[in-house]
Amino acid sequence: MKRHETKQKLLKAGIDQVSALGLSGVTIGRLAEVSGLSKSGLFAHFRSKEQLQIDLLDETVRAAERVVLKPAMQAPAGLPRLLALAGLWFGWSRRAGLSGGCPVAAALFELDDIESDVRDHALQLEAEWRAVLGRLVREAVAAGHLSADTDVEQFIWELCGIYLSHHASSRFIRDKSADARAAHAVDALVRRYRAAPAPDETQPET
Amino acid sequence: MKRHETKQKLLKAGIDQVSALGLSGVTIGRLAEVSGLSKSGLFAHFRSKEQLQIDLLDETVRAAERVVLKPAMQAPAGLPRLLALAGLWFGWSRRAGLSGGCPVAAALFELDDIESDVRDHALQLEAEWRAVLGRLVREAVAAGHLSADTDVEQFIWELCGIYLSHHASSRFIRDKSADARAAHAVDALVRRYRAAPAPDETQPET
Repeated sequence: MKRHETKQKLLKAGIDQVSALGLSGVTIGRLAEVSGLSKSGLFAHFRSKEQLQIDLLDETVRAAERVVLKPAMQAPAGLPRLLALAGLWFGWSRRAGLSGGCPVAAALFELDDIESDVRDHALQLEAEWRAVLGRLVREAVAAGHLSADTDVEQFIWELCGIYLSHHASSRFIRDKSADARAAHAVDALVRRYRAAPAPDETQPET
Repeated sequence: MKRHETKQKLLKAGIDQVSALGLSGVTIGRLAEVSGLSKSGLFAHFRSKEQLQIDLLDETVRAAERVVLKPAMQAPAGLPRLLALAGLWFGWSRRAGLSGGCPVAAALFELDDIESDVRDHALQLEAEWRAVLGRLVREAVAAGHLSADTDVEQFIWELCGIYLSHHASSRFIRDKSADARAAHAVDALVRRYRAAPAPDETQPET
């Protein structure tokens, strides 16, 4: 097998382990075990445990781009695209074929008090994701779907809370109503920031 | 030192470690190291790693009862008590003297895909906490502060999302606006379910 293909297989197996066990649960030793490679073979692909974890976070982002961002961008710009993204984001790890939850969501709680290059990298990825959300919210404002005075940062902050509550209720509590609860919360958030309808939308023609 | 006092000291050191490192970061070996006791000495207090983790979750709950629930119950029943609880809950681990974040919040993401007695215990504690929140929301409905048709479960679900977003933004992102964002979100949630004011509150006396 070519070197590149081997690395791809290792990353795929690795993010599956991260999704179930968290970043600290994935070590070069454990990945060597499931891949049948030697530890030194693994070190040829990942210089250190930290580099392995950073590469696995990047692989997570690529998976999320594939099953969340790319299909969401097919929806028309504005509120339809923002809502498409939310729908694809919530519960995305299952649709990406991972056996556990979202590796980045887990990292937010796993790495909050541990200073490391891995933490710094996760922080950067989180900022990039919030920038994507911000762009979509601003598009919805520009399209006149959300009010011109929408507090974009507050919108994103609350949307991330809905995501985290959905993650906890669907994956930890295994509550079957998680999808409906999340949809209701997103709907209420959008209503709060919804632009007032133009006069000709409120006045029925008589 | 008496046996009971030793155990108390171990639990206190233990939840501090959990708050920084997560449940999987606390082992009998590491706790033995920081406490200066032998591993076999530790086993006299905790039969297994799982029992240690369960005891640490229970100790977390006792700490939260002390710095969140008990002071919140001093506020008048209804919305004042519910808002007092939210204010004391968000960021409580710091006020409890823990060096890291909320051990239960971290457990929601750490244990979601790992079947164990520890997971079952965390699930039970989470359900008990949601029951406390439910009681306070229902008190606010009974007092006429929240609307009679308030969806209590949805209210709790969204409040937990605000808590998790506050945890991620204050502890992981270290965003100084986390408290203000959370307060704004709670205010919007309460407004949505606020009871319509009685007629004599809306009609100014003329």
